[in-house]
Amino acid sequence: MSRRIVCLTQGHTNPHTAKTAASVIRYRAEEVVAVLDSAHAGEDLPSLLGVGAGVPIVASLADAPTANTLLIGIAPPGGKIPSAWRAIVLEAIRRGMDIVSGLHDFLSDDPEFAAAAREHQVRLVDVRKNHEQTIARRIGINPNCLRVHTVGHDCSIGKMCVAIEVTNALKQRGYDAKFVATGQTGILVEGDGLPIDCIVADFVSGAAEKLVLANQHHQILVIEGQGSLVHPSYSGVTLSLLHGSQPQALILCYEVGRETVTGVEQMRIPPLAEIKRLNELMAGVMGPSEFIGLGMNSRRVSASEAEAERARRVAEFGLPVCDVFRDGPAVLADAVAAYYEAGQWR
Amino acid sequence: MSRRIVCLTQGHTNPHTAKTAASVIRYRAEEVVAVLDSAHAGEDLPSLLGVGAGVPIVASLADAPTANTLLIGIAPPGGKIPSAWRAIVLEAIRRGMDIVSGLHDFLSDDPEFAAAAREHQVRLVDVRKNHEQTIARRIGINPNCLRVHTVGHDCSIGKMCVAIEVTNALKQRGYDAKFVATGQTGILVEGDGLPIDCIVADFVSGAAEKLVLANQHHQILVIEGQGSLVHPSYSGVTLSLLHGSQPQALILCYEVGRETVTGVEQMRIPPLAEIKRLNELMAGVMGPSEFIGLGMNSRRVSASEAEAERARRVAEFGLPVCDVFRDGPAVLADAVAAYYEAGQWR
Repeated sequence: MSRRIVCLTQGHTNPHTAKTAASVIRYRAEEVVAVLDSAHAGEDLPSLLGVGAGVPIVASLADAPTANTLLIGIAPPGGKIPSAWRAIVLEAIRRGMDIVSGLHDFLSDDPEFAAAAREHQVRLVDVRKNHEQTIARRIGINPNCLRVHTVGHDCSIGKMCVAIEVTNALKQRGYDAKFVATGQTGILVEGDGLPIDCIVADFVSGAAEKLVLANQHHQILVIEGQGSLVHPSYSGVTLSLLHGSQPQALILCYEVGRETVTGVEQMRIPPLAEIKRLNELMAGVMGPSEFIGLGMNSRRVSASEAEAERARRVAEFGLPVCDVFRDGPAVLADAVAAYYEAGQWR
Repeated sequence: MSRRIVCLTQGHTNPHTAKTAASVIRYRAEEVVAVLDSAHAGEDLPSLLGVGAGVPIVASLADAPTANTLLIGIAPPGGKIPSAWRAIVLEAIRRGMDIVSGLHDFLSDDPEFAAAAREHQVRLVDVRKNHEQTIARRIGINPNCLRVHTVGHDCSIGKMCVAIEVTNALKQRGYDAKFVATGQTGILVEGDGLPIDCIVADFVSGAAEKLVLANQHHQILVIEGQGSLVHPSYSGVTLSLLHGSQPQALILCYEVGRETVTGVEQMRIPPLAEIKRLNELMAGVMGPSEFIGLGMNSRRVSASEAEAERARRVAEFGLPVCDVFRDGPAVLADAVAAYYEAGQWR
């Protein structure tokens, strides 16, 4: 039975908090029947979320009677479900809907949700739940598979979208490319992957390496980045992923106008050149690795400001730069393809 | 009721695999009644383990009738209990002993152990088990508390021992110093702390920050390091701890003669100067941080070789260097005290 999803974003229908919903709607549009946010029922979804033309915003589950799946559409820091949402989740369970969640707090560990799910014979799918216990060993890595990794200057700035868009563009060019999902949203979009930020610390780089080993029959892997090396809350996740996935090529992602660290606003983000240098140094500990382009998220600025910024960054770094949504991913896909063909990374 | 511990090291009575047992015997000698290793019963413990004068090696639990606690004395990569040990653990439970374990595989999650423990009313203490879900925020840090952190060039080279020895020497000098344990062995020795390497990835630096917030009423914290920034399996744990604990002062720990990465022997460890530089750069992202000394583990070399090595490193780095066991921790404690008194870190 195919999934017919209601995305729950009640009270949080904006592209920042509801980034899980936004990405599922963007990349799995055929499965989404509605967004649930009673305060915005009937309004235009794209004007609130930036995506979702044609997807209705409904006030209650009764307004989406064909749906069989409720997706928790937010990714809050700390990963707890808003208390106001409990009644909606319980109603969905009573209606016979499966619940899909990427939160750190597992629905299946919640006694009330678990009992209701048993009673109504629905599934509680916790995308982040895992029992990974593999240690990275650096054995059996295929030297003929190009690993590209998107890293960034902060969290929630578009590393996943750049990876997906570049992968899709490479496929269109005829390459056997694979998007390697490392977060709950990416896993929902791609249908596989591992939730790197929810793995026990000793095994995070092992999980990243496992993803490489499982997918290295493809020509090119584009591995989704997490956090940033300069984010005090998540830098270790970022480094585990960088060292575990051993990318030969890196794409530097950033948001124009982002100046302070998400969630730690008293800290300024260092300049991009410093972010680039730190990533080169830390990746370089494991093997040769170099930047081949920049992914610019320009959602906060006008088209002309974005173009001026793009030109400045091209001049600063001597690398191709684009906003994968505004400009399309062509220059980054070209850069990856050229790098692959040159073959010096082998 | 005080603990009377049998350390289980069956088949692994050596200072590398049985480092948990070795440290508990070194620092909690008054609680240890015996070591259990049937192949070495009656032999001299110090000649096998490097510590434990006067502690008998016994062949079975029946030979230590006063014991009330069995300690799993090893810390294998991956953290699984050797299958041959299951019968010994079950016998200990039947004898009414509590079981203390620092393994990643929790005894309390094992149906057979859990059922036996219920039947015999004993406790299964999994030191690594935790439900930490705090994100680092960098709020409320006491600027008058000096945070010293031991970092290293590999795992299992003495970062914990240097931290304990320096803390004890600072206390002898009259400072209000506290050893902050971040691993299962340190927690067993100190009686508190958090098992940093077993926390869900997103919350590792938050746990490190929590340890700082909980202990910063002391003048000086000496925070136990984990792994190394150049270890492909554990570098993320190391960085989370470095960023979460925000040390103003660092001590560089290494083992003389250690050339390849533990568990990843095809990788050579970079030179110490490079390890130092990477730690300075990554710590520096969060704030001023500098090295004030080196802890040298010289167990593999002779006294004269150790002294020559020590002199070379003093010349190379212009910093005090000592083996805390061979030379005593005085020069490192002096360096911390001088740094504290100079006060420029405030």
